[in-house]
Amino acid sequence: MKNVLLLALAILTIEFGLAQQAPVDYVNPFIGTSNYGATNPGAIAPRGMASVSPFNVAGRIDLNPLEKDSQWLSNPYVYENKFLTGFSHVNLSGVGCPDLGVIISMPTTGALKTNHLEYGSTYSNEIAKAGYYSAELTKYNIKAEATASTRVGVSRYSFPAGESNILLNLGLGLTNEQGGMLKIVSPNEVEGIRTVGSFCYNNPEAAYPVYFVAKFSEPAHEFGAWKTPYKYEGEEAQWMIYNGKTRIKEGFTREVIGDSIGAFFSYNFEQPTQVEVKIGVSYVSIENARENLEQEAGQASFDEVYKKTRDKWNEKLNRIEVEGGSEDDKIIFYTALYHTQIHPNILNDVNGEYPEVSTGKIGKTEGTRYTVFSLWDTYRNYHQLMSLVYPEEQIQMVNSMLAMYDENGWLPKWELNSTETFTMVGDPAAVVISDTYLRGLTDFDVEKAYEAMIKSATVTENNPLRPGLTEYLKNGYLSVDSGVPGPVSITLEYNISDYAIAQLAKALGKEDDYKMFSDRSLSYRNLYNPKTGFLQPKHINGEWYNPFNPEAGANFEKNVGYIEGNAWQYLFMVPHDIEGLKKLMGGAEAFDRKLDLVFDGGHYDMANEPDILYPYLYNYIEDSEYKTSAKVTELIKKYCKNSPDGLPGNDDTGTMSAWVVYSMMGFYPVIPANPIYTFTEPVFDMVKINLNTQYYKKKSIIIDFRSLNDTNPTIDFPTTLKQGFFIHHNAFLKSD
Amino acid sequence: MKNVLLLALAILTIEFGLAQQAPVDYVNPFIGTSNYGATNPGAIAPRGMASVSPFNVAGRIDLNPLEKDSQWLSNPYVYENKFLTGFSHVNLSGVGCPDLGVIISMPTTGALKTNHLEYGSTYSNEIAKAGYYSAELTKYNIKAEATASTRVGVSRYSFPAGESNILLNLGLGLTNEQGGMLKIVSPNEVEGIRTVGSFCYNNPEAAYPVYFVAKFSEPAHEFGAWKTPYKYEGEEAQWMIYNGKTRIKEGFTREVIGDSIGAFFSYNFEQPTQVEVKIGVSYVSIENARENLEQEAGQASFDEVYKKTRDKWNEKLNRIEVEGGSEDDKIIFYTALYHTQIHPNILNDVNGEYPEVSTGKIGKTEGTRYTVFSLWDTYRNYHQLMSLVYPEEQIQMVNSMLAMYDENGWLPKWELNSTETFTMVGDPAAVVISDTYLRGLTDFDVEKAYEAMIKSATVTENNPLRPGLTEYLKNGYLSVDSGVPGPVSITLEYNISDYAIAQLAKALGKEDDYKMFSDRSLSYRNLYNPKTGFLQPKHINGEWYNPFNPEAGANFEKNVGYIEGNAWQYLFMVPHDIEGLKKLMGGAEAFDRKLDLVFDGGHYDMANEPDILYPYLYNYIEDSEYKTSAKVTELIKKYCKNSPDGLPGNDDTGTMSAWVVYSMMGFYPVIPANPIYTFTEPVFDMVKINLNTQYYKKKSIIIDFRSLNDTNPTIDFPTTLKQGFFIHHNAFLKSD
Repeated sequence: MKNVLLLALAILTIEFGLAQQAPVDYVNPFIGTSNYGATNPGAIAPRGMASVSPFNVAGRIDLNPLEKDSQWLSNPYVYENKFLTGFSHVNLSGVGCPDLGVIISMPTTGALKTNHLEYGSTYSNEIAKAGYYSAELTKYNIKAEATASTRVGVSRYSFPAGESNILLNLGLGLTNEQGGMLKIVSPNEVEGIRTVGSFCYNNPEAAYPVYFVAKFSEPAHEFGAWKTPYKYEGEEAQWMIYNGKTRIKEGFTREVIGDSIGAFFSYNFEQPTQVEVKIGVSYVSIENARENLEQEAGQASFDEVYKKTRDKWNEKLNRIEVEGGSEDDKIIFYTALYHTQIHPNILNDVNGEYPEVSTGKIGKTEGTRYTVFSLWDTYRNYHQLMSLVYPEEQIQMVNSMLAMYDENGWLPKWELNSTETFTMVGDPAAVVISDTYLRGLTDFDVEKAYEAMIKSATVTENNPLRPGLTEYLKNGYLSVDSGVPGPVSITLEYNISDYAIAQLAKALGKEDDYKMFSDRSLSYRNLYNPKTGFLQPKHINGEWYNPFNPEAGANFEKNVGYIEGNAWQYLFMVPHDIEGLKKLMGGAEAFDRKLDLVFDGGHYDMANEPDILYPYLYNYIEDSEYKTSAKVTELIKKYCKNSPDGLPGNDDTGTMSAWVVYSMMGFYPVIPANPIYTFTEPVFDMVKINLNTQYYKKKSIIIDFRSLNDTNPTIDFPTTLKQGFFIHHNAFLKSD
Repeated sequence: MKNVLLLALAILTIEFGLAQQAPVDYVNPFIGTSNYGATNPGAIAPRGMASVSPFNVAGRIDLNPLEKDSQWLSNPYVYENKFLTGFSHVNLSGVGCPDLGVIISMPTTGALKTNHLEYGSTYSNEIAKAGYYSAELTKYNIKAEATASTRVGVSRYSFPAGESNILLNLGLGLTNEQGGMLKIVSPNEVEGIRTVGSFCYNNPEAAYPVYFVAKFSEPAHEFGAWKTPYKYEGEEAQWMIYNGKTRIKEGFTREVIGDSIGAFFSYNFEQPTQVEVKIGVSYVSIENARENLEQEAGQASFDEVYKKTRDKWNEKLNRIEVEGGSEDDKIIFYTALYHTQIHPNILNDVNGEYPEVSTGKIGKTEGTRYTVFSLWDTYRNYHQLMSLVYPEEQIQMVNSMLAMYDENGWLPKWELNSTETFTMVGDPAAVVISDTYLRGLTDFDVEKAYEAMIKSATVTENNPLRPGLTEYLKNGYLSVDSGVPGPVSITLEYNISDYAIAQLAKALGKEDDYKMFSDRSLSYRNLYNPKTGFLQPKHINGEWYNPFNPEAGANFEKNVGYIEGNAWQYLFMVPHDIEGLKKLMGGAEAFDRKLDLVFDGGHYDMANEPDILYPYLYNYIEDSEYKTSAKVTELIKKYCKNSPDGLPGNDDTGTMSAWVVYSMMGFYPVIPANPIYTFTEPVFDMVKINLNTQYYKKKSIIIDFRSLNDTNPTIDFPTTLKQGFFIHHNAFLKSD
């Protein structure tokens, strides 16, 4: 009954706006903006293509200790930085490499300055909510507010009386790609293109354009463009008194092209005035950017756009209702859920068009084309969460991956705006798709998906997904001689993918494949060195690689054998063969001891993916199940906070947040492509997941942990429309 | 009768093609390609917007002694250079500063190279005709041929069997502006934009785009774009292994933007194959460039385009028929006439659209919008020649100037593609327009024209045409203290403009203005120093500037007082007050003596405009008239040759060539805005000018110099439809 009341309350709060109880009010977008969480507090709609992030990572290292060009920095905003140079309109959240962070608007007052080092400002009174950000720019006495619809960033600048400017800087950006074009269409409109790409300093050949149209509610009194050319170094420099200097192109309405260009719109207000700036974006064309702008925000005011986006957020977040826990717990929880709703994001324009992968063609979707698939991260828990809470999205994500296969001939690995960044390792798409199917979301072309998986799992020539496959097939592992970095990690990843393929094969009645891929999935065992008790790098001739130091490779140091981790952090990354690993180690007790050693010896890294399943592995050791709850509770307390450093590390496009959401709810999907959850002690007394009845037979799952003192807590597992998939495995209660 | 026969013959030769007698066959486009003539041998249609010039001024200073970045170089091609890096598609001819020379195509064979220093080639067997150029590329065994319609450059590359490439380099260019965008539309089409501008290292703020569409007769087997970014110098450079390196974007069909970009189209021919490349250009938009291409050359073959352009050239050149003279004389003459038909060139697209001056708007003309008005040069003789031989064009040029006034509020000074370059000095548009009217071409809005002239002649605040006007009006001269460079030159120029305005005022019945401007036109007399016998720079307080050296400033050296010249070269630049100057000097004899001193003392500079009238001034000295013929004949012999160094210097957009055309025909317009011709001994026995009967009462002027032995040669002066304008002044016969 109380649950029903909560739901009713939630609906009421949505209806009437801003009451504290609405899930949307528990979102604190500053969480993750420090400690390399790589999130940003910008305004964004759920899975928005556009967002408006404060951009405070450029220049003035005295004010911005985390300056974008002085280090490897992945985000447009860092909480501890202080010098703001505008608001970027396409942004990535929780990624490990710099890209996007472009189309930067900035309000200023007084004489026109076009160099961000000159026009940048400190700021105060920051406010960030789901779909809203505001700050006051100290230097200018301007209040800057931002909101966004899916494809349009909307800002409201409250200017004092007098001379003011709105700058649109196409030179500045987080990406290291250069090249922009702009064209001022009228005193209140400018359109253009910005080149972005080479995510992770990879694949710069694929650098691609993002298009935009910006409209201003007030026509400018004066406008123009600027361009700062590179310094010319030939003989002719002597006659070029303007060499390398910024040119102000007043009233210029033709295309301006260059690496460092921008547009300015200047005003002279008789009284304090608000100007709304709407910037529509597209990855297809300027025309589509304009259509996106018009369709989503053409007639709407800032407040109307914000209201709609806030409602959308609340609707999204309200899929999970919680009771109990502290105020901070709720904020941590709903912010984590919020962070799972940023990537993968929508790539298609309102008219359905999107850039295809590799073909250069413009595709068209009836549904949603998603992008930003950081699959090495997200295959572990993220898509499982989406299948449960947002199945309608997960199905579209699978369909997007299959469309990429149609376009490209390969499933994605780390796809970003229809470019394959070839970042990270393994063949994770197979896992995600199998897992989705096996959880009962079968409404996609599974035969095509299977074909695509088999291709990546078997083609040994020019296979972009599985380098080193020949060795893997022959010897069961990648050797240090393979030329592929991280052969131990990759062997494990291929094993997990093969396991996933096997599970799907089984479900599809392909018994031979099931057998073959099941066998393949266990080949990691070749890398277990009983003398050291680790999975170790090996030569192609079967000899162990020397020297071996299980600690080498912590903190993202490069090392032979492992990717983003060391031997400790990969040892237990065998979710599909826990029993087998136990045996290799000499039994459950040895397994338990070694797992303890990871934590007690300080080898556990909460900030990266390979070992995030570790605390849940205790559930698989009889009589040690209690350690799961203890460890998960401890980790949440230690790493998950209602503060900018409130994520353990990079959010990894929501993977860390998915861990938080699951862990706070009290269960976790340890084994990819195996629809089994294992449990832990939850943070909340009661969790209610409102299910999408188009996919699930029941309307909700209610997990009432106030019945914890019972020996059998009442957990009412749902089933999908197609097949059951919730299987109770062990229990957190064993510790009592 | 013989003349009629000649005409008939000429028509016959046009009809039947390539007989040697056609005027078009006397064009040698290599004339002026050395000795800083600044012409190019590229293929161009009369007054073409597009042209296809071999581009041999980039890099390899061992092969290209006149390298574009190593000095002040104004042209895409220099005869003595040897290293060709492609064919540029928008080019200037006979100008004094580098600009345009962009959209560069290049055929190569073998593996793809995108750096012009690597793919450039020497060449042999150059052929250049009106509307045609070809050469064989030594490195590749490719024959490259070029022709052009008005707005489309058309090339034909004859490739050997095997791997071949067509490159379109948007980075390379003669202009010092940077920034291009390209988009491959299909395996045989690419479109794009290139930034050009800052002519004479001036006004870089106005740098503007030129648009193009390139189509290939054969679809490429492989295509793509390249981009060479600037070297990144931040911390991040360590992770950018591609830093500063060229990226090959195979199959890329989105916008590529940057300073150094290009597109490639690669083939693998089983047998020797010809590929035709059509590149349409526009200063309005890519769409217009495409329409220009389709309308002018969409369906036509290379040969058809060339045939049409050749016919157009012949029609143009056939306006003047000559008899007598040597073969070289005819080549020199028709090439000079050809060079007068390059600039001003057509700016409007086939649909009539063109970029307006300053407004940023797109204008539309029913007639022709001309551009490239190097008026400081051309007011002296060029437009007079156009009024006589091509009145239909001269009227459109005046209308173009008036349209600029409508758009910009000012008449042009040195207009280039609707940007005002503010190059050179004086107020020459007033002279050109008055002269045109007074020669009887009155079919334009003369009241508007008069208003525009008065504005530039009287407005003292923010007057871009007449800096220093306040001093000029007050003291009759610009002083060395005015802050305006070249005050003596400018005083003389303003005097000439004022004289022109006075003449027009008189014709329009504005007696007061006539009186005032007539008075103003004589104020140069303030600068005559009777002690030295020179027009000298003066202080504002009336004292002579010291030191004074009449030779300082020769050879384009900077000096106090004069622009591009010295006291000798400006002393007689008073065409409107020859009698007054005589008086100042102490009479005709002193005038004669001083004029002799110019020539005998080596002070005469045939390569620049201020003194090009000097040899004709002898006609104004009784009993010295013979010296005009002697001097002109000598100068033609010395400077005008059928060879690359066959122009005395920079062609100055046809001004030098107009001097050659007039001088070889035997008459010259000494006094701007005064429709008087003076005569000299002609090179030809007979000249027949076929007049445009829409403007002239007679069908032709026949100047039959075979009657030289008569005391009254039969020269049948034409009159326009509106009024007579040919007045016989003195005679070259006095020498006999």
